[in-house]
Amino acid sequence: MATASLSEPTLISFDHLHALCADALRTVGLGETDARIGADVLATTDAWGVYTHGSKSLSGYLRRIRAGGLKPDARPRVEAEGGAWAKVDADSALGMVGSSFAMTVAMAKAREQGIGYVGVRNSCHFGAAGYYAWLAAREGLIGISMANDLPSVAAPGSRGAITGSNPIAYAVPAGTYPPLMLDISIATVAGGKVYAARERGEPVPQGWLVGPDGQPTTDPSNWPAVGALSPAAGHKGYGLGLLIETLSGILTGASFTWRIGSWMTSDPATPTDHGAAFLAIDIGVMMPPEDFARRMEELIAEVHSSPRADGVDRLFVPGERDWERYDSAMVDGIPLPPDVVTSLQSAADSVGLDLAAYFR
Amino acid sequence: MATASLSEPTLISFDHLHALCADALRTVGLGETDARIGADVLATTDAWGVYTHGSKSLSGYLRRIRAGGLKPDARPRVEAEGGAWAKVDADSALGMVGSSFAMTVAMAKAREQGIGYVGVRNSCHFGAAGYYAWLAAREGLIGISMANDLPSVAAPGSRGAITGSNPIAYAVPAGTYPPLMLDISIATVAGGKVYAARERGEPVPQGWLVGPDGQPTTDPSNWPAVGALSPAAGHKGYGLGLLIETLSGILTGASFTWRIGSWMTSDPATPTDHGAAFLAIDIGVMMPPEDFARRMEELIAEVHSSPRADGVDRLFVPGERDWERYDSAMVDGIPLPPDVVTSLQSAADSVGLDLAAYFR
Repeated sequence: MATASLSEPTLISFDHLHALCADALRTVGLGETDARIGADVLATTDAWGVYTHGSKSLSGYLRRIRAGGLKPDARPRVEAEGGAWAKVDADSALGMVGSSFAMTVAMAKAREQGIGYVGVRNSCHFGAAGYYAWLAAREGLIGISMANDLPSVAAPGSRGAITGSNPIAYAVPAGTYPPLMLDISIATVAGGKVYAARERGEPVPQGWLVGPDGQPTTDPSNWPAVGALSPAAGHKGYGLGLLIETLSGILTGASFTWRIGSWMTSDPATPTDHGAAFLAIDIGVMMPPEDFARRMEELIAEVHSSPRADGVDRLFVPGERDWERYDSAMVDGIPLPPDVVTSLQSAADSVGLDLAAYFR
Repeated sequence: MATASLSEPTLISFDHLHALCADALRTVGLGETDARIGADVLATTDAWGVYTHGSKSLSGYLRRIRAGGLKPDARPRVEAEGGAWAKVDADSALGMVGSSFAMTVAMAKAREQGIGYVGVRNSCHFGAAGYYAWLAAREGLIGISMANDLPSVAAPGSRGAITGSNPIAYAVPAGTYPPLMLDISIATVAGGKVYAARERGEPVPQGWLVGPDGQPTTDPSNWPAVGALSPAAGHKGYGLGLLIETLSGILTGASFTWRIGSWMTSDPATPTDHGAAFLAIDIGVMMPPEDFARRMEELIAEVHSSPRADGVDRLFVPGERDWERYDSAMVDGIPLPPDVVTSLQSAADSVGLDLAAYFR
């Protein structure tokens, strides 16, 4: 394998990355099924090219599991339910385990009632929201997923953070096309991009950050200790953030805003009590799925054939580039960036696995 | 009354504005109930201070009703339904009539099953999306509303519009506070603001518009004939716009993108076939409503007491300013801007009503 000091990506097969994640999670006590669920979320996220939310986080999860803030033997359960809704206690499971369980419940409700809403408490960082939306889409349902998080994003006029980056994702089956899929935070830009600029000693573009005085700044040097990310489109991102907070945090009985633990920096022995929410819609109740597929194909073909600005080669629909990276990764391997390889080395070392063996 | 040539707003009581709208709608053939529904949406929207989407549109609606594109005797109906979902054929009713009906169905489903989704076809411009969300919130439910529209918003890289402004709104009961309420389009800015700049012969700020070459422009002089509004936060607004298109247009069997008629400029004798979608969630299934109210109050108080940037007097939660304008309007009257009064004069003239009588 190439070493992590190179600036070139290092190729790993999906199966080997999956095995690495699953082996590591088993080593810290997760059962076979839960280890595979966690591994599938992380490896799939990397295959989409969303490296900020994939296996790079494995070492952090392992640390929390060994400290007890995440329970290796957690049993997420439906603590209350009715026709089209359920309330899930994720029992401080690895975020991927409780979230996959909850979306599965939402899908079952949708198949019975047309739509299902499942709210989750006692969750933790769930990685890429898009994965859970896709769980629904790959079985022919429309999926929507969201979660709250410790505040990192300003409100218009605030000095400091008010809401979390509060991710929201959707996935929609699209006939012969891969699912339409969007996974966004309500911040203008991902915190990881601000971190990266800070590490390079560079300013960030205007509009990304609010400084310690509550005014826009291009200086990331004090972030995240002070300052906050700017909300996407100002009051629009802020307002959507509060809807996500409501559906995933307030309504579920989870912690909200500053009461949530940081999965990275707070005491790893204490659960973070994130909230999350999952929605699934059964297309077939509204129209024959083949008609829906044809209409989605028509919509996507229309976008693809629309006039483009000079210098623009293609117009994309949401998720299109992720699926192209995914298809390529399944054939040629996943090109892991150096920072991910470094983090995987740390993860492997922490549980006594030989990382090099997985890159062979 | 003050004449429309003044630049000062003209005060009208909520009841008088409501009566004007209802009388006008009755004059063109709407029944008593439907006329009152339409009037309530328009007068409430103006009381919130959202003048772009209130009674200013009345003259346009009257024109379409008289031409036959909107049916005065329409009977919106549930054409298919199941546990937590329904499909509504709005029968080319005034947008407010079909939409209020559909949200009422969604609320009934939510009370039975925890959540309800209602998709609507054969709809038209429904005014302020926030009104329908509020229908749910004022009865203790969480409401979400959305609709598609004729394209006016670019995708990243496109030369021209790809999606409609596709409004989405939510309203959440908030205990002793008025409902949390957000009503946004997926464009960076409302088209009305670009129109206004064009009429004044002024450039628009960078980031609002994409010109005829697909590049950002500050020149609104050719809009909307060519060019398009910029999507809010780029791919985020564009992606949310396609989710709204999916839930309100594709899944409902309504028209989508360029197949939708313009409620303002297309043949007024032909239905526009807009789509819309309404979601309601019953708070009480997840937790006692008084606990939810307390948690919402805690969230809002936290925002209000958060540190502010220099020169910022208050931090607002979504809808807060609308509700302050609403409360003031109920006491002192609604301060209608001159362009709204001009439009109401045209509406009154078109159906033989004496506008001055309603301002007494």
